Amino acid sequence: VDKTGTGQATGAHEDDESTVGGDAEPLLDPTRLLALSDGVFAIVITLLVLDVHVPELSQGQTLAQALEETRPSLIAFVISFMIAGIYWVGHRDIFALIRRTDRGIVWLNLLYLLPLCLLPFAASLVGRYTQEPVALRIYGLLLLVIAVMRTVIWAYITGHPQLLWGRVGVRQRQAGLALAIGPAVAYLVALIVAGVLPLASLAIYAFVPVLYFISTGLLRRRRPGIRLYADFT
Amino acid sequence: VDKTGTGQATGAHEDDESTVGGDAEPLLDPTRLLALSDGVFAIVITLLVLDVHVPELSQGQTLAQALEETRPSLIAFVISFMIAGIYWVGHRDIFALIRRTDRGIVWLNLLYLLPLCLLPFAASLVGRYTQEPVALRIYGLLLLVIAVMRTVIWAYITGHPQLLWGRVGVRQRQAGLALAIGPAVAYLVALIVAGVLPLASLAIYAFVPVLYFISTGLLRRRRPGIRLYADFT
Amino acid sequence: VDKTGTGQATGAHEDDESTVGGDAEPLLDPTRLLALSDGVFAIVITLLVLDVHVPELSQGQTLAQALEETRPSLIAFVISFMIAGIYWVGHRDIFALIRRTDRGIVWLNLLYLLPLCLLPFAASLVGRYTQEPVALRIYGLLLLVIAVMRTVIWAYITGHPQLLWGRVGVRQRQAGLALAIGPAVAYLVALIVAGVLPLASLAIYAFVPVLYFISTGLLRRRRPGIRLYADFT
Amino acid sequence: VDKTGTGQATGAHEDDESTVGGDAEPLLDPTRLLALSDGVFAIVITLLVLDVHVPELSQGQTLAQALEETRPSLIAFVISFMIAGIYWVGHRDIFALIRRTDRGIVWLNLLYLLPLCLLPFAASLVGRYTQEPVALRIYGLLLLVIAVMRTVIWAYITGHPQLLWGRVGVRQRQAGLALAIGPAVAYLVALIVAGVLPLASLAIYAFVPVLYFISTGLLRRRRPGIRLYADFT
Repeated sequence: VDKTGTGQATGAHEDDESTVGGDAEPLLDPTRLLALSDGVFAIVITLLVLDVHVPELSQGQTLAQALEETRPSLIAFVISFMIAGIYWVGHRDIFALIRRTDRGIVWLNLLYLLPLCLLPFAASLVGRYTQEPVALRIYGLLLLVIAVMRTVIWAYITGHPQLLWGRVGVRQRQAGLALAIGPAVAYLVALIVAGVLPLASLAIYAFVPVLYFISTGLLRRRRPGIRLYADFT
Repeated sequence: VDKTGTGQATGAHEDDESTVGGDAEPLLDPTRLLALSDGVFAIVITLLVLDVHVPELSQGQTLAQALEETRPSLIAFVISFMIAGIYWVGHRDIFALIRRTDRGIVWLNLLYLLPLCLLPFAASLVGRYTQEPVALRIYGLLLLVIAVMRTVIWAYITGHPQLLWGRVGVRQRQAGLALAIGPAVAYLVALIVAGVLPLASLAIYAFVPVLYFISTGLLRRRRPGIRLYADFT
Repeated sequence: VDKTGTGQATGAHEDDESTVGGDAEPLLDPTRLLALSDGVFAIVITLLVLDVHVPELSQGQTLAQALEETRPSLIAFVISFMIAGIYWVGHRDIFALIRRTDRGIVWLNLLYLLPLCLLPFAASLVGRYTQEPVALRIYGLLLLVIAVMRTVIWAYITGHPQLLWGRVGVRQRQAGLALAIGPAVAYLVALIVAGVLPLASLAIYAFVPVLYFISTGLLRRRRPGIRLYADFT
Repeated sequence: VDKTGTGQATGAHEDDESTVGGDAEPLLDPTRLLALSDGVFAIVITLLVLDVHVPELSQGQTLAQALEETRPSLIAFVISFMIAGIYWVGHRDIFALIRRTDRGIVWLNLLYLLPLCLLPFAASLVGRYTQEPVALRIYGLLLLVIAVMRTVIWAYITGHPQLLWGRVGVRQRQAGLALAIGPAVAYLVALIVAGVLPLASLAIYAFVPVLYFISTGLLRRRRPGIRLYADFT
């Protein structure tokens, strides 16, 4: 039985002699990929709040009046937090299936984190220019790119079963694809209508999290039984 | 004996053959939930200091005089650090009981982190407008929401014993509830009196950490004996 | 068989009696070194975006026009993200070989993180003064120092095989050296030509990531076979 | 043999039946304490750079001239990075001895992180007002408090051997105390002379890291032999 490759997380687990092959496995270990991703998610959801500024009072203004102006950025924070939270839950769902990493998954994950890092900027932009089509389009484009990257990662891992803990069934595969493509389509619509109906665009950004939550709930319903969990959180 | 599901943290621990069911357990593993939470806590307590600005000297002003103005934000930092520290200790106490996550706990934890992320903004607001009822009310409202979320999480996990390492006794359950509801009530009072007695409101924010520390100490006293630890840190 | 020293990551794994020698091994465990490094990488790639500012509109200006001005800093963000991403992948490749840390590797890693922390500043500088030789030289100098530190770490660990999981062959050693020295040479050239040909300098910064990706791909090609992974991601 | 209590890091390691007592050990696990501390250290050393600002050019000024003004904050960054790095190395050395946490160590660690979080502010202050006694005193006071907290933690853990992996010998105890008290005394001197000799004060801040590095090196020399490591990194 091969017990090498416990990776960085478990440290110097094995005897000193078992060096043959031992140099290989830690590179397959997803630990650091997940540590980097969780770090980025934690920072992104926390940086979002840096845009909610403490107001300076202008003459004759009360603090309550001044705080009115921070309301749009506060709403942008809450929506973006929920979107980032859903991305994190989805990221955790996908990587819970993954047992080993390879070159493809490492780089695809980095390309997934790239637009994610821009989320605080885009949220800040929408918080400042709530009904400006350009701001709404940039926000939508970013969410679209993240959703597309999620779809690509899902397609990649279901096509590389040797990276996974177990087999992903056809139904689970399709459900995962639907959960990744669904938001992508919604964001594409929001992006297109941003010029004509900015409020509709905003509404889509606000409701996709709610719809995602409901649809994963429905997906779980179809798989009742003994199991404590379902495939999608 | 099922040895699968060692999760992301321990990496590729098992043989290549044991794939049946192996795809399931990592989703129950609390590792990433804790990594995200610890990341958010670390950022929140560190961002709190970003509000303590290096002053620019106005004409004829000494640095010592200019630093006088940073004193309120420094005090707000220390109080908020202690409050966030207590939240972290409480979060660690609760999740030390948890062995498996489910959908509910993942989402409840995100809803707990949401107001936590706003703490630097609220601390900044109080540091800037120390005796403004509006600032004190926003700060109190935030602390109240966090305390309520803590209560909800405690009620949820004690109601789902299959998620825990062991059984939570009636007494421990009540003590945990008291520790979560206690601060909530104190913050509610602070919120109500903020308009009439801003200083009393501030005093409550400063003393709840001290009272929490003392009451967990008393709770530990009641359980002396062989055990190295008690239920609440 | 010595099974102590499972380190911080695995916690209180052993019996209470096996204290002899048990105090030693956790210091060799790379867990915390990797946690600190991943944290720094996560923050660095996320802070890079803080330079992409939400513009304030001047009179008669549309948001689209104002956003034109953020384009250079957006491009600087994307290039710097890819460079930092490649550094992270390279850091992970190297430390996947490492089983134990010693004093040298701890301090060399800190000296590697020092210039890395300055990357957001340098990227911000280039984003603001795109064609200024001074900005391009500072950026190049920083990337050069990081590449040199990577070379030093690689030389150190291949010279201390007792720290590694397995033996590093001559070919792998040379390939690793080439991957560390290659970018260093490219950045040195970019640094030298920055005064005369700022655009050529910029182009080098943009294309080194691409070249690195291609050359690691070629290195992997030369080692086909049964193994799921190769030495460099 | 009790194998429970593998804690959060290793996840759902045990069978479903072994719940008795299983609720206890995760609270003793230092994993989350270290995750929070490493997160704070990573943020602190990275936030230090936020003070190194990209300059705006005033009329007729070249970028090279403008960058002259960022030199003090760059030097403050490098010194503070090295000081924070040494603190991290020392924190890792101490907690490598710790196998279990208790209430005392959790709270002492938080009180250690509190002044650490203020380091970016103090470094920023010294970078801005390099020779101002007040700035130098605040910086020194902060470093003194951190050094004192380190001494307290060292005294606490050597007085609670049940928390450690192994016994700490008298010599190691004294060496650890010297390493904690030494910098404290140096910072106290720097604090006192800040008013009369600001440059001497600055020099002490710059040289304590160097002296620390040399003295840990000498301590290691006295313990040559078969062991790969020594007690202090």
